[in-house]
Amino acid sequence: MTDHIYWKNGALYLLDQRALPFKKTYVRCAGLKDVILAINNMTVRGAPLLGIVAAYGVVLGIQEIIKSKKQVKDSAVEKIAQKLGNTRPTAVNLFWALRKMAGTYETYKHQKDLADSMLEAAIAIHVEDIENNRMLSLFGAELIDDGDTILTHCNAGALATGGYGTALGVIRAAHESGKKIKVIATETRPYMQGARLTVWELMEEKIPVELIPENHAGILCANKVINKVITGADRIAKNGDTANKIGTFMLALCAKEFKIPFFIAAPLSTFDNSIENGTQIAIEKRDGSEVKYLGDRLLTVKDVEARYYGFDVTPEKFITNFITEKGIIEKPFKKYIKMLFQSQGLAPVLPQGGSPPPQAKA
Amino acid sequence: MTDHIYWKNGALYLLDQRALPFKKTYVRCAGLKDVILAINNMTVRGAPLLGIVAAYGVVLGIQEIIKSKKQVKDSAVEKIAQKLGNTRPTAVNLFWALRKMAGTYETYKHQKDLADSMLEAAIAIHVEDIENNRMLSLFGAELIDDGDTILTHCNAGALATGGYGTALGVIRAAHESGKKIKVIATETRPYMQGARLTVWELMEEKIPVELIPENHAGILCANKVINKVITGADRIAKNGDTANKIGTFMLALCAKEFKIPFFIAAPLSTFDNSIENGTQIAIEKRDGSEVKYLGDRLLTVKDVEARYYGFDVTPEKFITNFITEKGIIEKPFKKYIKMLFQSQGLAPVLPQGGSPPPQAKA
Repeated sequence: MTDHIYWKNGALYLLDQRALPFKKTYVRCAGLKDVILAINNMTVRGAPLLGIVAAYGVVLGIQEIIKSKKQVKDSAVEKIAQKLGNTRPTAVNLFWALRKMAGTYETYKHQKDLADSMLEAAIAIHVEDIENNRMLSLFGAELIDDGDTILTHCNAGALATGGYGTALGVIRAAHESGKKIKVIATETRPYMQGARLTVWELMEEKIPVELIPENHAGILCANKVINKVITGADRIAKNGDTANKIGTFMLALCAKEFKIPFFIAAPLSTFDNSIENGTQIAIEKRDGSEVKYLGDRLLTVKDVEARYYGFDVTPEKFITNFITEKGIIEKPFKKYIKMLFQSQGLAPVLPQGGSPPPQAKA
Repeated sequence: MTDHIYWKNGALYLLDQRALPFKKTYVRCAGLKDVILAINNMTVRGAPLLGIVAAYGVVLGIQEIIKSKKQVKDSAVEKIAQKLGNTRPTAVNLFWALRKMAGTYETYKHQKDLADSMLEAAIAIHVEDIENNRMLSLFGAELIDDGDTILTHCNAGALATGGYGTALGVIRAAHESGKKIKVIATETRPYMQGARLTVWELMEEKIPVELIPENHAGILCANKVINKVITGADRIAKNGDTANKIGTFMLALCAKEFKIPFFIAAPLSTFDNSIENGTQIAIEKRDGSEVKYLGDRLLTVKDVEARYYGFDVTPEKFITNFITEKGIIEKPFKKYIKMLFQSQGLAPVLPQGGSPPPQAKA
């Protein structure tokens, strides 16, 4: 399907995104534990991709039970989903995918072909994500003008999704339609997803890209070098408040100050219609040592305290539009997000087994 | 005097700030060329320190002429100042120091003890900078409250000055006065002056400090973790617009959004009363490869275009107060900066040999 995530001979293969763009190596996940580790240690990242990986994780978990000749019990499947849900709290797509897989399990749990049905459901989530990205990218490309210089943050590309990408999908679609555009990519500390992944994806396709440390966004907005901003998202509340990679909010502040349109490109699976606003979004706090080292290279005094949040929340007032596979969402977001979900008949998204995890306080 | 810059046996010794905090090695500058290289390659940085180093650079340049038994001519001395002035365009202290040294040269140029007089003048600039920092820090400490958590950017510490520091001087003075404070230090890409220098200085003095990537400033301001921001400056225009390390402007945007006081601590030598506002400040553009590598470690795709500005300009409306050795400057800045300079009887600061360098356009 796409070469950064595929299923082969009963195992999930994941391109190791930590090694990109320097090495192209794959991590083979033969069981649930391997998938949990791959999510935790950032072999894979990106909200839509985490959803897909979690779906395959459920398949592997159920496979393991079947292989061990045990009966597949509801409680065991719930435990699998719980373990996957405990990996990373912010990206709601992960919980959305677990919910979908739980639905498939309910339908097929008493049937012989349970394992096959679960795999088919995971593949369907994967395929649907790519289709959604292509669709939202076509909508989004309409917002991009010939000659635009577009700032993006982190990586919301093919690598962050099943394929094609969200923010980078829009950029791809605009480029494919013949518009001359240039991308400014923030390097995105501390994991450098922008420098390593976004730059790599765009250069592979010969889309003009320039790398900056994220502290350059201010001067480039002030000097009118940047005229659009587009990022992905990890969780969007009912009012439009949006969690995305740490630093997104500061880019939104710059855009607002200079009246530059700020777009969020995300499939409907990123919308969490169980929460009213951004204060209810769980923000992942990671180990401060990930800020203090680059690989094995110490960047500071060894014993210093350091802080690393994976995400921040951009209040809806800083966002110009959402770009989804069903179209562009205009303001007032609360009203139109609600209408969109009603027309889809979608149920509120809740993590398997209960309420959303509590918010980490800074 | 201070151990990161000293004069000994006819040469200038500079602590190599690129190697800190991992190694404490010195660069010996025996001639003008050595000083120019040390400024260009970031062995030393920080606006007030660059002024002091440039002053010693003039001494070394004149020493070289005297040693070669040539006559010291005005044109040769002007050339020395020009070469030093061409190293880095943004920090005005450098031009201020060259102007001071030119005045000393005018007074002593026909006297036998010219070399000694020039050295005395350079040492006086050095000593005066430390005294000014101590004085401005006492004023600034009055703005800091017990229990404050203070965000600072880059390094405006002892290492950036003759000694004691400007922004970190204020923090030192507040700490010495018994106030319980905590510092949040941005790592400051790409040179990591915050991670390497600010963290090191503060930990040496047991002032509580926590390291963050600069993209964390938004969430920490939003969550009211930070309640004051204080940075140094590289050049301040007559209206108060302030050039400082790239990224300062984005921190100022965060502070403004959440009504957090934003202070600039800088000696009068950082004020450029030859320019009306920030649009006239030359912004240094450095080699993009400095963004692509950390030491010899490649961070991205080798051939990607990358951009690196050394500084940005924070418009005066984002600044709460300036902290100087003559006191706190209140709004309206234009009026009070002018009054301050009139009361000091200071002449407009102009680079030796002409007008300020033109502004680099983004």
